This record gives sequence, structure tokens and C-alpha cells, in this order.
Amino acid sequence: MKILILGGDGYLGWPTAMYLAARGHEIAVVDDLSKRQLEAEIGYSPLWPIPPFAHRTLTWNKLKPSCPIKMWICNIATNRSLLYKIIDEFSPEAVVHYAEQPSAPYSMMTAKAAVDTQLNNVSGTLNLIMAILHHNADCHIVKLGTMGEYGTPNIDIEEGWLDVTHEDRTDRVLYPKRPGSWYHLSKVHDSHNLEFACRTWGLRVTDLNQGIVYGTDTDETWLDSSLSTSFHYDAIFGTVINRFITQAVENAPLTVYGSGSQTRGFLDIRDTIRCIELACETPPDGGTFRVMNQFTESFSINQLAELVQHITGCEIVHLENPRVEQEDHYYNAKHTALTDLGLEPHYLTADTLEDMIRQVRKHKKLINPEAFKPTVKWRN
Amino acid sequence: MKILILGGDGYLGWPTAMYLAARGHEIAVVDDLSKRQLEAEIGYSPLWPIPPFAHRTLTWNKLKPSCPIKMWICNIATNRSLLYKIIDEFSPEAVVHYAEQPSAPYSMMTAKAAVDTQLNNVSGTLNLIMAILHHNADCHIVKLGTMGEYGTPNIDIEEGWLDVTHEDRTDRVLYPKRPGSWYHLSKVHDSHNLEFACRTWGLRVTDLNQGIVYGTDTDETWLDSSLSTSFHYDAIFGTVINRFITQAVENAPLTVYGSGSQTRGFLDIRDTIRCIELACETPPDGGTFRVMNQFTESFSINQLAELVQHITGCEIVHLENPRVEQEDHYYNAKHTALTDLGLEPHYLTADTLEDMIRQVRKHKKLINPEAFKPTVKWRN
Repeated sequence: MKILILGGDGYLGWPTAMYLAARGHEIAVVDDLSKRQLEAEIGYSPLWPIPPFAHRTLTWNKLKPSCPIKMWICNIATNRSLLYKIIDEFSPEAVVHYAEQPSAPYSMMTAKAAVDTQLNNVSGTLNLIMAILHHNADCHIVKLGTMGEYGTPNIDIEEGWLDVTHEDRTDRVLYPKRPGSWYHLSKVHDSHNLEFACRTWGLRVTDLNQGIVYGTDTDETWLDSSLSTSFHYDAIFGTVINRFITQAVENAPLTVYGSGSQTRGFLDIRDTIRCIELACETPPDGGTFRVMNQFTESFSINQLAELVQHITGCEIVHLENPRVEQEDHYYNAKHTALTDLGLEPHYLTADTLEDMIRQVRKHKKLINPEAFKPTVKWRN
Repeated sequence: MKILILGGDGYLGWPTAMYLAARGHEIAVVDDLSKRQLEAEIGYSPLWPIPPFAHRTLTWNKLKPSCPIKMWICNIATNRSLLYKIIDEFSPEAVVHYAEQPSAPYSMMTAKAAVDTQLNNVSGTLNLIMAILHHNADCHIVKLGTMGEYGTPNIDIEEGWLDVTHEDRTDRVLYPKRPGSWYHLSKVHDSHNLEFACRTWGLRVTDLNQGIVYGTDTDETWLDSSLSTSFHYDAIFGTVINRFITQAVENAPLTVYGSGSQTRGFLDIRDTIRCIELACETPPDGGTFRVMNQFTESFSINQLAELVQHITGCEIVHLENPRVEQEDHYYNAKHTALTDLGLEPHYLTADTLEDMIRQVRKHKKLINPEAFKPTVKWRN
């Protein structure tokens, strides 16, 4: 299958590209390198250095000449005409869309960051819709959303749609969202735009509301050190399990924000790439806006801290919560669609955590403890 | 009360400014004149010429020296720093936000128009939120939304929020939206962004989901011909009753799109300005995202055509529907919040229509019948 991956230089985009190429798909990747630019501006680097986009693609293509990855540099938010050309030339059957500013804290840093995040993410997705409409409305858009779009409602979280009965009448509606940052809101806007495109032009879209991803490696990143993916543990681009692992390696306390009873969905990076494959292999009918909740297990932040403490003996400290969010809340989010398609989850075990610890320990001297501090406060 | 009106050069913004000034409020208006620019680009003018923004403000200030209107030229979507300065200098207690690209058909013309509409509208509202947060979080934002955000669900349309029971648990959620154009989607995005600002920083916001406005005049537009408001009957900026009236004056057939059983909420322009006053005078508590459905009556398009036909004897023709929308649908939209605050509606009567016909007939020779044609097709 011909699959175009937008945001192919990212934490998830790059391993997805290699995995799908290794599985026999014809892969092209697009990125504008803006994440690297943001990292440089903010001053947080991935724990280990990542070769340039062209270099890692070249390395892959030399190691795996039978399944090469094609690449383009393009900002899909601002360069609609180049995106049209790429889609015209490559003619994908599916486009996997990761190409968004991915950080909630970044979006909350300044007015400029908030506006830039929403404009970048909304216009990138709009341009993709336009390109697909223009070139091949049969092409399947696989869009990365986030479980954070839902927030923490007091009812079960369904997979994107909700059957509502109201005053003796019924309808099936988009699940109402209560996102917690300008970044999460941008994904909600994308979802509305994509649903409209399905309803109006018969596009086929899968919106994957992904949980929080952890993990350092996939089968393909092990092949060569220059194929590894970016590992962020900092307060802007990092995710919580990656941060706890890095804090443990540094013998720093594990920092829990607020009470720690906030509960979220999580998944292993190896499950992310498998979910993308499952989504691509099972395109929905034209006109269908399919939503799947892409995570495998729910944990409270306290549970995660205790898991890491159990292995490492690290101290746990509670910091004032920099975010505005409910700490004690109901949380029951459905996530059967992807297992129904065949996902066999990698659950979070002591072994998984120990593998991550081993990998992070190799780069211990590169850890910057300043990056643990939650510098972006929602209320400021 | 000090009230800042964004989009104060528009069909509704300008009469709102004069009305509130005449009622003793201290008024400033902001506009970037982009609507006039779009009109010039597309080639559709208001039926009668509208003096420049500065000219009409000057006319008002000469006629009404006791209640002058202050004015600024500012694109709030692109010039955040000037918006900050204006809000800092004027220090409003309420900001009425009309400053958005207002046309659904325009947003559906081209990929560029779609993206421009969403970026303009989303970033303008975001910049306003940032300015209010920066200068005075107590200031009340009165935002113009549209009934079109809801679409035509199979359940009653509530005023912005919905009490949901799902598997024996309950929550109060933002009413799920199903908008029908890139323009309508931009307003849905705005609503989500505003609700987040209320929830996170305790802002006070009123989101007015307005129906389709008709009418040519208010008490203030009658004072001087150069105070009149722009009257659009064309397929891009016009609204349906204004178009039917103009078609009737031209002895052209009234053009109904599709079956004509599409039902929508409507209101008189004089009720629009009164609703804005009521909203401003009753700010919600900090942290409250108040939504009110701002219309007074529901009609199907056929009912409206028949009303105009009854008075004028005009022919009615059905054209292929240029939009993608449900034609036969349930429609029961609640709209009690504004009448509870004291709105006394001007209902659509034969007298109202005859007043409009008289006013339009004065400018009969300026009517461009080409402008009646629905040139923008949703499916293209």
C-alpha cells in the first residue's frame, strides 16, 4: 500500500515510517523540521542526538534497499501548492497525518505560541483535506488526535460518537469535547473539520484519539543507532512515563503534579505503529468519519510513579499542578475498536520499564535536570 | 457602560454601535475594512453605496455630539499588539465581537478562502481572549456565533449546553455541533476556545448563536442617509429574506434552493441590536460561558417565499440546492434566554416586508440580477 506520512521526522512519525516500510508498504515521509526548530528555540533537546532527517532516511535506505523511504521537506500549513504536488506525484492510498505542533505546554507558553499552534494545526489539516479532495477523494486520511480532546467528563468516553436521547428523541452526535489546552483544542477543531469533509464530500477519515505514548524503541530503531527516535523527557515535549524513567536514572525525585489522581490512557510506542498499520489496512467507507481511541491501559499518575518507584526506589514528590485540570474525576474511556481490528497490546510491565531504564542510562550524562521543571503554568 | 465593538463597519456592527451610543453607552468601534475589500474582489456591492467608515462615524459624531463614537482601524486577527493597545486605552467593560469573515458561501469558494476564513476567525477570537486576559479579565466578551453551528440534529436544539444521561451517569456538556460550511465551523472552533478561556481563567463570555437576520433599518439609520447600513442580497453576502425582497422588487422569481423545506431561525435587525444590549447589560459571572440562541421565529424557506409571494405576486422557482444540507429534517430550537432577559421581538409581518420593499424599491436601478445566482456550489 502507498502510504504518505506527514510529520515523518517526529517521535512517532519516524518509527511509523520505518515499521510500515519494513512491512512491505511503499512509504514517503514529509516534514518541515519545525519541531527541531522549536526545540532549538526553547533549548530542550531529545536525550540523545538525532541525525538530520535526510541522514536518517539515507541510513534506512542503505540498510534496507528493498524498502526505501522517499522524503520531502514541506510545511503543509503554509505551502499548500507543494503539498498538492507531493500528493499528486506520490498518489498515496493513505495519508498518516502527524504533522502538528504536538505540545500542550508549548501552546500555553505565550499568546503567540497559542495562536501559532492553532493556526499551524488547523491550516495543515485543512490543506490536507483540500489536497485529497483535489487529487483523489478515495485516499484514506489517518489523523492523529488525542484522548485529551475529551477531557474528563462524568460519563463514559465513547469512541468519537455518542448516541444521545433527549426529550424522547435520539441522534448520533460527535462526542462532546472538553479539552484542556490550546493544543488539545486545535485537535478538536481538526476533528470537526474532518467530520465535515466526510459528510460533505464523502471522504474517508480515521481519527485516532491517542493516549500518552511511552517507550524508546521499536524493532527498526534497534537496527542502527542513527535510526533511533527522539526521546523527550522535558516539561515541554516530554511525556510523563518518559520523564519518570529519566528522573529515576538521574536519582531525582519523580515529580507528580497535584494530587496525582488524574487518570489517563497510555500506550507503548510499538502499539502506536501497529495501530497506524491496522487503521491503514482497514479504510472506512467513503463518507465515514471513523474515530478510534488509541490506548491500551489507563493509569493514574500516582500509579505510574509507584510503578517506577517500585523498580528504582526513587522518591516521589508532589508539585503544585501547573495545569488547570480536574484531579479527582470519573474516567472510563472505551478502547475496543483497535483490539477488534487485531491489536495485541504491549502492556506496561516491570520489564518494559527496565528496558527503558537501561536505554536511558546509556545517555545518563546527557540528562539535563533543569528540563524536569514544569515551567509553563496554565494560569499565567 | 464602555463597550468596544469589533467589526463595527459591518451590516450589524454599525447599527449596533449607533444604537448603543444613542442609549447612553460609551462606544468605540474597530474594523479592518476587510469586508469592503472582499466585496470589491468578488464584485458584489451592497445595494446602496455605504460611505467610508471614517465618514459615517464623523456624520454620527456631528449629528450626535453628546454621544460620539470613537473609531480605530485594526485587523484583530493579524495585529495583536494594536488590539492590546486599543483595549488598554479604551478599557471596555464589554467587547462585542462581530469581526469575522461572515459568509458561508465565501468560505466554500476555494481552498484559499476556506483556510483564510478559519485562520482569520479563529485567530481574531484568540487574540481577543489574550487581550482580555492581559488587560482586564473582568471584561465581558459578547461573541456573535450562529445557529448554523448546530446544523439540523434530530433532537431539540438547546442553548449551547446539553444535559446528557449516558449509561446511568450524567453530565452537562457543550451542545454537539454539526455545522455546514467552513465558515460555520470557524464559529464552532471559536466557541470551544471561548469555553476553555472561561473554564481556565474565569473569563465571562456570552456566545450569541444568531439566526438569519433581515431588515434594512433601525431608528438610527433613519437619521441620515449616510448612516444607513449595508444591505446585501447577493449569493455571497446576502441573506435569504433580503434576497427575496430584492428579487420581488426586480420582478424576478424568488429562488428557493432544493425543496425549500429547510427550516431556520430568523430575526429582525432591530432585535439583533436589542439582544446585544441585553447581553451587555447582564454579564454572566466570571468563569461562565453563557450561550443564548438569538432568533425570534423559525420558518422554512418555502414559508418565507410564500410570504413574499403573497404580498408581491412573484413567481417562486426551485433551483438545485448549491449547498450540501438536509432538506427534510426535524427542527426545534430553544430560544427563551433572551426573551427572559426582556427581548420583545419584532415578528415578521406583511408590514415589515412592505417596509423593506419600499426601501429597496428606492434603489431599484442599482439591483444587479446576476448577483441572485448561487454561484458557489458546496460539492465543487
